[in-house]
Amino acid sequence: MKAVGLVAEYNPLHNGHLYHLKMAKQITKADVTVAVMSGNFTQRAEPTILDKWQRTKEALSVGVDLVVELPMQYAVQPAHLFASGALSLLDSLQIDDFVFGAEHPDWDFNSLVQAENKFESTDFSKYNATYATAFNNQLIEHTGISLTEPNDILAFGYTKAKLKSKLSVNLHPVKRVGSAYHDEKIDDTSSISSASAIRKAVKNGSAGFESLVPEQTAVDLKELKDVNDWNDLYPLLRYQLIQAPLNYLAQTYQMSEGLEHRLKQAAQRASDFDAFMRLAKSKRYTYSRIQRVCLYALLQISDEQMQIKNKQLYLRILGFNHLGQEYLHQIKKTVKIPIITKVDQKSRDGQLQLDYRAGKLYEQLSGVEQDMRRRPIIV
Amino acid sequence: MKAVGLVAEYNPLHNGHLYHLKMAKQITKADVTVAVMSGNFTQRAEPTILDKWQRTKEALSVGVDLVVELPMQYAVQPAHLFASGALSLLDSLQIDDFVFGAEHPDWDFNSLVQAENKFESTDFSKYNATYATAFNNQLIEHTGISLTEPNDILAFGYTKAKLKSKLSVNLHPVKRVGSAYHDEKIDDTSSISSASAIRKAVKNGSAGFESLVPEQTAVDLKELKDVNDWNDLYPLLRYQLIQAPLNYLAQTYQMSEGLEHRLKQAAQRASDFDAFMRLAKSKRYTYSRIQRVCLYALLQISDEQMQIKNKQLYLRILGFNHLGQEYLHQIKKTVKIPIITKVDQKSRDGQLQLDYRAGKLYEQLSGVEQDMRRRPIIV
Repeated sequence: MKAVGLVAEYNPLHNGHLYHLKMAKQITKADVTVAVMSGNFTQRAEPTILDKWQRTKEALSVGVDLVVELPMQYAVQPAHLFASGALSLLDSLQIDDFVFGAEHPDWDFNSLVQAENKFESTDFSKYNATYATAFNNQLIEHTGISLTEPNDILAFGYTKAKLKSKLSVNLHPVKRVGSAYHDEKIDDTSSISSASAIRKAVKNGSAGFESLVPEQTAVDLKELKDVNDWNDLYPLLRYQLIQAPLNYLAQTYQMSEGLEHRLKQAAQRASDFDAFMRLAKSKRYTYSRIQRVCLYALLQISDEQMQIKNKQLYLRILGFNHLGQEYLHQIKKTVKIPIITKVDQKSRDGQLQLDYRAGKLYEQLSGVEQDMRRRPIIV
Repeated sequence: MKAVGLVAEYNPLHNGHLYHLKMAKQITKADVTVAVMSGNFTQRAEPTILDKWQRTKEALSVGVDLVVELPMQYAVQPAHLFASGALSLLDSLQIDDFVFGAEHPDWDFNSLVQAENKFESTDFSKYNATYATAFNNQLIEHTGISLTEPNDILAFGYTKAKLKSKLSVNLHPVKRVGSAYHDEKIDDTSSISSASAIRKAVKNGSAGFESLVPEQTAVDLKELKDVNDWNDLYPLLRYQLIQAPLNYLAQTYQMSEGLEHRLKQAAQRASDFDAFMRLAKSKRYTYSRIQRVCLYALLQISDEQMQIKNKQLYLRILGFNHLGQEYLHQIKKTVKIPIITKVDQKSRDGQLQLDYRAGKLYEQLSGVEQDMRRRPIIV
C-alpha cells in the first residue's frame, strides 16, 4: 500500500482541510492517508478548541485512514522543530509522499534552504530582534524572498528537515485556499475560512460557522459549552510563576536570558492573561514564544527533560479505519519506534509523560481524561 | 505600660473572643492588649473566611490595641510549633502576661510538660499511629491525663515553650466558654458559638450568626460573596501535584516517608478535594497534617527554606490604636527583632517571602492584594 502523509492541528477540522485531503489523494494516488496531528495544544501553545479524540473522530469521518499524535515535545515548538518532528514521525510511518499547504507552493524551497549555508551567524544580543527578523533579513539579501507566512515557514522547515536527514519522502507543497491563516473574520463568499475565524465565531456564539466545517465538526462545536483559552489557564500559570522559586523557573525549557524574572514580576502584578502578556511582552520575544515558554513553565518541563524526550520517538495511535489498520499491520514489523495504543502506568510515568501531563492540564479545562483508559477510535 | 498578650486566629472574631479579651484585661489589669494573629491561613492550613486586614479591623473595633501577624511559618504548623512561635513573638513584644483559653484551665500544665521527660522515645514505624496517639498513650500512663482537646494541646505547647526558653511571661489559662472548638452547629441558647459553626452558617447562608459576632464582623460577613475553602484551592493543588516532578515534591516541608507518591496519585485520579482527601488519607496521618502538607506543597516551601525562615523572627504590624501606638513607641528601642510596617521589594523577596506568597495564594481566591502597598490599619 502506498501512503500519503499529512500534518495538521485540525483546530478545528474545516473545509480547507477537506480540500487539502482531496488534493493529497489526487496528487499522489495513494492508497492510504496518514495524518500526524497535534494533541491538545497547538504550535502556538494554545489549548485546542476540541480535544484530540474529538478531532481524531472528525478526521476519520472525512476519510483520513490513520491518525497519529504529534507528541507535545514537537507539537508545541517553533516552526523548524515542529516541522522536523512531524517529518521524522511521517518517515517512521514509512509514507511515500507528504503533501502540505504553503502560501507560495511554487517557490523552490530547496534553494531557499541551501541559501542558509551562506548566512552569517546571527548575534541575538547585537540585533536585539527576534530570530525570525534576523533570519529574514539575510534570506532577502541572498534570495530576494522573505519567509513571513506561517505555512511557507513550515514548508521551509519540512524541506530543511528532509535534506538534513536525507529522507526519501517526496514533498508536495500545495496552494492554501481560502482565508489567510491569521484572518479572524469569516469570508461570507467562500465555504473556506481560517480556523481562527471559525474559533472566534464559536466563541462569540455567532452563526454561520456550520457551513465552513464538515458535519462531525459542526456537531462537536455545537455541543461545546466553553471555548477554553489562556484566560482559563492563567490562574494556574499565575500560581506557578508566583510560587515557584526563580532558580526552578530558570530551568524551564527555553526560559533564557533571565526571562523568569520578567514573567514572575508580570504574574505578581497582573490579574488576567491580557494584562500579563502586556507586561511580559518585549521586542525581543514574539507573542508565540512567550506563550510557549508559559506552557513549558506550566508543564514544568526542564531543558534537560526536553532534550531527553526529543530523542525518544514513538507512534501514539489515536484512531484508524480498516484501511488504516491494514496499513499499520503492513508496516508493523519494520517500524523502528514503539507503537503505542494504550497508556499504562509505565508509559504514563516514562515515555509518554509529557503528553500525559499536557493531557491532565487540558483535563483541568475540559473535565475529560485524555490518556488513561482511552483507546484508539476505530471506525 | 503593662501589656497582656493574646494569640488568636479570629476566624472570624466572635463573642467567645470578646469574652476572652474581657477576661484577659480583668485578670491582668494590663494597660494595653496585644494580639498575635494568624495571617490568611489557619493552623489547619485552611484559608481564613476573611482576610487578615478585615480581621485586624474587627480586633481593633472590639478593643485590641495592637495586632501583629503570626508569620505563616509558625501559624500553619502542628500545635507545639504554632505555640512556640506565637510565644516567641509575644516575648519579643515584651508582654508581661499571656492569657489563653483551655478546655481544662485547672490542669497543672507545668507537671504535664515535666512528665514528658519520663517518656520513652516514640518509634513511629513500630506504633504505626499518629504522633498524637502515641504521645497520649504515654501521657496517660504517667499522669492519668489525656491531652485531646485543641486548646488544652496549645496550652501544653505554650507551657512547654516557656519552660524550654526560660521566658518570664506569666501564663494564664482561662476556661473556654460556649460551644466546643469543633462544634459545627450554632447553639441557640447561647450568644457564643464556635467559629466553625459560624463559618458554616455563613457558607450556607443561614440566618442567626449576626447575634454571635461583634458588629464589625457581622458587617464583613454579610458583605462576603463567597466562603473560600480547599475546594477553591484544589485546582491549583491538583495542578501542582500532577505537574511537579516527584523529587521536587519530595523536598516539601513535612513531605516524609514517600507521601509525595500518594498525593500525586490521588491528584491524578480525584477531580475534587473531598475525593482527593479520601484517597490521600491514611491511618498514619491526621486530616490536618495532610492539609498542611498540601499547603506547603502549594506554596512550594522546602524543608530547607522552612528551617531558615524559622530562625528569622520579625514583628509584622497589622494595625493599632493610639494605645497600641504608644506601646510600640515604648518598646521600639529594646525590641530585638525587625518591626515591619510595610512590604517593599526587598522584604517581599527576602524576610517576608512566605507571608507574601501565602498572601498571593489567598489573593487568587479573594482578588485582594494582601501585602504590597498595604499599610497598618490605624484607628
